[in-house]
Amino acid sequence: MTALDLIREKRDGLAHTDDGIRFLVNGASNGTIPDYQLAAWLMAVRLRGMTDAETTTLTLAMAASGRQLDLSSIAGRKVDKHSTGGVGDKATLVVAPLVAAAGVRVAKLSGRALGHSGGTLDKLEAIPGFQVDLPVDRFIEQVRRIGIAIAGQTADMVPADKALYALRDATATVDSVPLIASSVMSKKLAAGADAILLDVKAGRGAFIGTVEEAEALAQALVTLGTKADRETVAYVTDMEQPLGRAVGNALEVKEAIDTLAGRGPVELETLSLRLGAEMLRLAGVRAVDLHGYLADGSALRKFAELIEAQGGDPRVTDDPGRLPTAPLQRFVLAPITGYVASADALEIALAGKALGAGRDRKDAAIDLAVGIVLQKKVGDRVTAGEPLATIHARAAAEAANVADRVAAAFTVGGSAAPRALLLRRVTASGVERLDA
Amino acid sequence: MTALDLIREKRDGLAHTDDGIRFLVNGASNGTIPDYQLAAWLMAVRLRGMTDAETTTLTLAMAASGRQLDLSSIAGRKVDKHSTGGVGDKATLVVAPLVAAAGVRVAKLSGRALGHSGGTLDKLEAIPGFQVDLPVDRFIEQVRRIGIAIAGQTADMVPADKALYALRDATATVDSVPLIASSVMSKKLAAGADAILLDVKAGRGAFIGTVEEAEALAQALVTLGTKADRETVAYVTDMEQPLGRAVGNALEVKEAIDTLAGRGPVELETLSLRLGAEMLRLAGVRAVDLHGYLADGSALRKFAELIEAQGGDPRVTDDPGRLPTAPLQRFVLAPITGYVASADALEIALAGKALGAGRDRKDAAIDLAVGIVLQKKVGDRVTAGEPLATIHARAAAEAANVADRVAAAFTVGGSAAPRALLLRRVTASGVERLDA
Repeated sequence: MTALDLIREKRDGLAHTDDGIRFLVNGASNGTIPDYQLAAWLMAVRLRGMTDAETTTLTLAMAASGRQLDLSSIAGRKVDKHSTGGVGDKATLVVAPLVAAAGVRVAKLSGRALGHSGGTLDKLEAIPGFQVDLPVDRFIEQVRRIGIAIAGQTADMVPADKALYALRDATATVDSVPLIASSVMSKKLAAGADAILLDVKAGRGAFIGTVEEAEALAQALVTLGTKADRETVAYVTDMEQPLGRAVGNALEVKEAIDTLAGRGPVELETLSLRLGAEMLRLAGVRAVDLHGYLADGSALRKFAELIEAQGGDPRVTDDPGRLPTAPLQRFVLAPITGYVASADALEIALAGKALGAGRDRKDAAIDLAVGIVLQKKVGDRVTAGEPLATIHARAAAEAANVADRVAAAFTVGGSAAPRALLLRRVTASGVERLDA
Repeated sequence: MTALDLIREKRDGLAHTDDGIRFLVNGASNGTIPDYQLAAWLMAVRLRGMTDAETTTLTLAMAASGRQLDLSSIAGRKVDKHSTGGVGDKATLVVAPLVAAAGVRVAKLSGRALGHSGGTLDKLEAIPGFQVDLPVDRFIEQVRRIGIAIAGQTADMVPADKALYALRDATATVDSVPLIASSVMSKKLAAGADAILLDVKAGRGAFIGTVEEAEALAQALVTLGTKADRETVAYVTDMEQPLGRAVGNALEVKEAIDTLAGRGPVELETLSLRLGAEMLRLAGVRAVDLHGYLADGSALRKFAELIEAQGGDPRVTDDPGRLPTAPLQRFVLAPITGYVASADALEIALAGKALGAGRDRKDAAIDLAVGIVLQKKVGDRVTAGEPLATIHARAAAEAANVADRVAAAFTVGGSAAPRALLLRRVTASGVERLDA
């Protein structure tokens, strides 16, 4: 068997054997298949697709290509929570401490910002002193001790995904359901949780535009998790507009703290409570009124505990002014009176990236303080001249550079209803339509 | 514009702009687009295709990516002849001296063997002393002096094709009409001839299997040549069985010499006379009885002149025993009495390659003496125990290794007619069906 045989097979729309897929994954991991052959194979997969059986084999082989965490020394059913990536998506920062406060053990590996999507690790690094690189034994020990740890994947995990992902990004082969599904689920499987909760984003700010495509990906992910003996539930949620109001690392941490304190944007709270309740169920933990954990301060205290355990300054939870702050703020004003009909998440994310809040290459530095805060969201009434959003920038010139782009991201019209956020719940038994 | 934009465009089945194609060709030539991006783009082209306009732009840009020969100092209309590659195809060795003897100026750049296909340069190197690497000024001077030169492309010609061809070979993207057509015609355009004669091979021994596909490629090639203001004619000819009888470098030179002396296999002579007459017409040289040039020895004398001009030993034309000879010959015998129904050109070529007559990598050495000579061709009657072919090998073990493969390449049955060799003639005016 050679890489050329496998490229030819996929080019012609045929299914690979299990051995063929393992040969490819092995070659991607150890570098014995050159990048140009992997790239041609990825394009053939993007255009020809893969069967469910192929995708399962690919996922399991990728998960097994490097270190796999063993969380068995942590008591109880461990539940992972993963978002496919969006704009202003700080839900992990809320949900993880919330369910940890309720007794779920959260051993969470997160990622970094790339392209227009934010990353939980970058957000956490906005907290002065916070360390996201934990040795595996310390990561597990921390979960055993305080019930929660959030860290970066270690360098030796899923090397096949690292190789393939870097190539996909450079070869326009990111948006392929089998490739996305195997990338996401191989990392989840290697991370060792017993059950997996997925938040599949759909809309302008996600890499998947339509609810139908997101539903298909959610089904593929749930199928993969189920075949790998992990109970898996996926939500499809709206990403046409940013989640909550803040877009930008420190700004999002502040919004997460507000939400943990029970005074956050209603939609972020709604999503966090729903995902949190699902995590309790998956963990086999007795259902409780999670809202009470926001109201009584225990969720926020758990976040402070997490911050302290990982070297950060827990005082930010009482005084978010200790987070990095951009020196300059500039309003973007409504041109007419009416209702906000859209707030394009992609355009707002790209404006944030232009300010320095994001990156195009994995090793690029980002500015943790800058970003955009939405004063109005879809369905809100606005008067001409009232602020639609606030730009937090390093300098006036940089704010001016993106002001038009932020303004153009908003449409104000005659009337508009708020957007539904929770759209689908997908389990091994089927798809449930939501509208909340 | 970025390579990623162009990959995405082709992935989605859209046509590139002229600027986009030139950006890609430039990036392939100077190495600024990495191989993995070119590979993904090639697979997208293989699966999505290209319009005629895109293929024309690609071809012209590739031709212009390096040195372009200026043959204007050579009097008359220069005509190039090119075969898309086959097994036992030594027609250039016959046609080029034949038409040069009749007054056509032949400035021919040829290629080397790769995979199961032979290459004219390797065949010529079977002649002791023959030099295929000529500086451009000497190449042109030789055509002016004796009317013929056959040399390798210089290193600085069509660098874009070199980069793309190497990648296509490694990524299962060889068999794409726009990619084949642009590769062939960019080299022909850069080689500077005024008119182009193409021999598009169809069948087991060609990289195109069916006459229909070969006709489509022939039309694409003629369209490209016409758009580039070169009168272009393409023949589709049969490559189900080897051309002539000899497969292997020195063995094919000997057969070419026999044919130039008027005692070659009838089909090779027929093809050579037909292609030769077409070249005279394209060159605007008065039609003559080319057969007379074989009969009176002038074509063979022109071959001797060519050999002498390029440092080879011209005595091989009188005494082919001076060519390298394999130490061992072994017959492959007919198992039953009947008519030869097929002689699989690919299987025979692969057997020859296993003997050492071919190569899989451009820099691999080949054994110029070894090969296979067919005693019987399709339509011939054969008696059980009579030789079907002779294996010319370096050693008995090597002959034994391929004997079964050569035997299995033949089918002997109840009755079979000779195969037609000349199948189509394609010009800018249309397709003419042949049956000769």
